[in-house]
Amino acid sequence: MAEKTILLDHGSGGLASQELIGNLFLKYLDNPTLHSLEDSAIIENQKGNLAFTTDSYVVDPLFFPGGDIGKLAVHGTINDLAMRGAKPLCLSLGLILEEGLPFDDLERIIQSISEACKEADVPVVTGDTKVVPKGKGDKIFINTSGIGVVDTDVVISSAKAEEGDAILLSGTLGDHGITIMTRRAGVALEGDLKSDTRSLHRLVAKLLQEIPGAVHTLRDPTRGGVATSLNEIAASSGLSIELRDEDLPIRPSVRAACEMLGLEPMYLANEGKCLAVVAADKAEQALEIMRSTSEGAEAVIIGRVTAGKAGRVTINTPVGGSRVVTPLHGEPLPRIC
Amino acid sequence: MAEKTILLDHGSGGLASQELIGNLFLKYLDNPTLHSLEDSAIIENQKGNLAFTTDSYVVDPLFFPGGDIGKLAVHGTINDLAMRGAKPLCLSLGLILEEGLPFDDLERIIQSISEACKEADVPVVTGDTKVVPKGKGDKIFINTSGIGVVDTDVVISSAKAEEGDAILLSGTLGDHGITIMTRRAGVALEGDLKSDTRSLHRLVAKLLQEIPGAVHTLRDPTRGGVATSLNEIAASSGLSIELRDEDLPIRPSVRAACEMLGLEPMYLANEGKCLAVVAADKAEQALEIMRSTSEGAEAVIIGRVTAGKAGRVTINTPVGGSRVVTPLHGEPLPRIC
Repeated sequence: MAEKTILLDHGSGGLASQELIGNLFLKYLDNPTLHSLEDSAIIENQKGNLAFTTDSYVVDPLFFPGGDIGKLAVHGTINDLAMRGAKPLCLSLGLILEEGLPFDDLERIIQSISEACKEADVPVVTGDTKVVPKGKGDKIFINTSGIGVVDTDVVISSAKAEEGDAILLSGTLGDHGITIMTRRAGVALEGDLKSDTRSLHRLVAKLLQEIPGAVHTLRDPTRGGVATSLNEIAASSGLSIELRDEDLPIRPSVRAACEMLGLEPMYLANEGKCLAVVAADKAEQALEIMRSTSEGAEAVIIGRVTAGKAGRVTINTPVGGSRVVTPLHGEPLPRIC
Repeated sequence: MAEKTILLDHGSGGLASQELIGNLFLKYLDNPTLHSLEDSAIIENQKGNLAFTTDSYVVDPLFFPGGDIGKLAVHGTINDLAMRGAKPLCLSLGLILEEGLPFDDLERIIQSISEACKEADVPVVTGDTKVVPKGKGDKIFINTSGIGVVDTDVVISSAKAEEGDAILLSGTLGDHGITIMTRRAGVALEGDLKSDTRSLHRLVAKLLQEIPGAVHTLRDPTRGGVATSLNEIAASSGLSIELRDEDLPIRPSVRAACEMLGLEPMYLANEGKCLAVVAADKAEQALEIMRSTSEGAEAVIIGRVTAGKAGRVTINTPVGGSRVVTPLHGEPLPRIC
């Protein structure tokens, strides 16, 4: 029997679209809000400001050790909400499918989205599917947008970093980037290489609850890596950032892969890590809070904010030297997320 | 000099991405919320429930008489919010660019998005850009998601249609669908064929303000056309819908093109029209309200909701006959929006 694949019809808005919705989307993602299938979802409002974010996911390959494009799309957008101190309320799901995509691949991705949503307790409440002809897309692109609510007294942004603040990183560097890179290059490496994709909103909620006011900035260093995120924080706050090389947490397998491929871990994408810029007197407590969670178990303090030249990030090397860390130039890893 | 085009670098999250943001997105779309360029936008909340919607736009060609993919992406998502009775607050903008897209085309689209947002008074507050290699996309795909607020006492849905309600259509049928179709087929037709893309939130606000409680259902009949939207309303409400053929407003140029191409106007996509299901005793007033707006100047009553077989839509023909109008089967017009 021929493999069942996605046809142009599935994006028509007609009966084939409705079959896809009934047999796949509602099967895995159903909830009362999504179920109504109206032009937009209606959600009960909550107190606080609204946080709103969007991301498209075009990762290649679709499936990789530790996750897949569906998990990435759920976690990535939840994390973008969490990085402003918001509690994620709900997600939208926009699919652009290429004609000929095996139905089984789509089902596996939707199932994965369903699992990630359940684990995070953040539902998909509205969606859209388009189909483009074979050769005009690449299997599947996913957009997720998300709404969150944030207490009006919580103001977290790159511009809020202060002189003396400690910089925490919730775990090891580069796991996602190097996993995609080695997979795509067909490089087989020993060890435990897998994507770190996961949602971080619970870790953030714990920090905000236990040390209110002490968290000044949160960023998840995805594309462009820790180096680029720290440069953005330094630029927005008009301060310098100093890192200590020996404090950067890197798995041996990631370090080995980076050496082999000539990559710098600080520029690799992460999909389940956050940088937190925290008032110095609460830094140790913040570290303990992070480490008390499974997603932050390997958290470390990697540096501090200083009054040096605005926008400069430097790293102190073990032999006593110091070098400037620039933001990402060029594209080492297209389609990493 | 070589034409400036989009490179993979522009989706890296590094310096090239930042140039695109600074030289293009902020140039045309700037506002204080977008300007912060954080992981998510923070928006002041408003009273009421939240409406949330998403749509991806993959229309081919990108530019067509009456509009372009950018205008469509703004109007379409605003309209999806309006169809639940919501006041649109803000949009997100997710771009998937194909390597090699002329920079000028992108600039023209972003400029068009800017104009549509200003005209509608709904800003883009957050965004994302990905670039896929040449041959893995098709110039540009756009996702817009939107947030709106809706009074808690406004409940508009397909399920709320009631026996006896009048069905209004805010203007002529099929203008968008036939414009794209003839353009793509390379058919040159005389006359005024152009897309009807426009935002309808002001027309909806006026209806809700002037005849509160009388509007039961609103739908914008995009993909699948009026036939499919009416079938969905009939199915959701468990009622029948009866139309009168002679009441369907169709431009002569659209009718001529449909006859030439063998298409049925009721299945053609519209991008600036809405169906309104309104309590019978307020139908004439609703019609007047619609006609008092530029976007609803050609509004008509096209039929009514009856207690017949659940989910059935029929059309009465001028010679006294009646036929069933089924929802769209198959895909007459891929990539219409």
